[in-house]
Amino acid sequence: MIAKTPAPPYYAVIFTSLRTDVDEGYGSTADRMVELAAGQPGFLGVESARSGLGITVSYWESLEAIRDWKRNSEHLLAQQAGREQWYSAYHTRICRVERAYGFEDLDKSDKSIPNSDTFPELRTR
Amino acid sequence: MIAKTPAPPYYAVIFTSLRTDVDEGYGSTADRMVELAAGQPGFLGVESARSGLGITVSYWESLEAIRDWKRNSEHLLAQQAGREQWYSAYHTRICRVERAYGFEDLDKSDKSIPNSDTFPELRTR
Repeated sequence: MIAKTPAPPYYAVIFTSLRTDVDEGYGSTADRMVELAAGQPGFLGVESARSGLGITVSYWESLEAIRDWKRNSEHLLAQQAGREQWYSAYHTRICRVERAYGFEDLDKSDKSIPNSDTFPELRTR
Repeated sequence: MIAKTPAPPYYAVIFTSLRTDVDEGYGSTADRMVELAAGQPGFLGVESARSGLGITVSYWESLEAIRDWKRNSEHLLAQQAGREQWYSAYHTRICRVERAYGFEDLDKSDKSIPNSDTFPELRTR
């Protein structure tokens, strides 16, 4: 669920939103947008969470890829429906990812991954 | 809850995480870290959501402000406890926000805000 992105630089779109009470069509459209984005040239991954506030971060190879995704005709219709029905407010931030680092404790996170490390301590990647 | 950030450029730290089952100390430390970050020079705001995956985005004036926050001694202890107890995996991405735009439907989002607009339609800012 944490997106496996390449070494920087690459780009991120941080989409932060507050929903209305209107659920009709929201879930299926949100799923469809993830599917559609994943098929766009330059798509690298997406991460999403909501607890009151919703945050979706999509990752892209270039600003051109983000522009093309923003202008996708099916996506434009979803954006319009979002403003009319599903969101009371949102903010979109387009960013260049300059540095990235991570941590994964394979002992805690997924014991099914074969572990050839002699020292099964905390590992960063 | 959507952070009120200035016009770009500014910086964002996207912290994406997966939790372990260990809750002890997590909530109080998370709250304390938000409080502590908000008192750091160059802090601009923070947004957070969790539904399985957790995403916290903090906004900063400069890379130096982010570096100083990362090195804050109380924050360093929390980072260590996070790796040892609370997180099975996380990924941190440091980004330069290059463009931003938003939408707020004041009729839907907060009717308590006085509205002097003659045309109460969708407004962007």
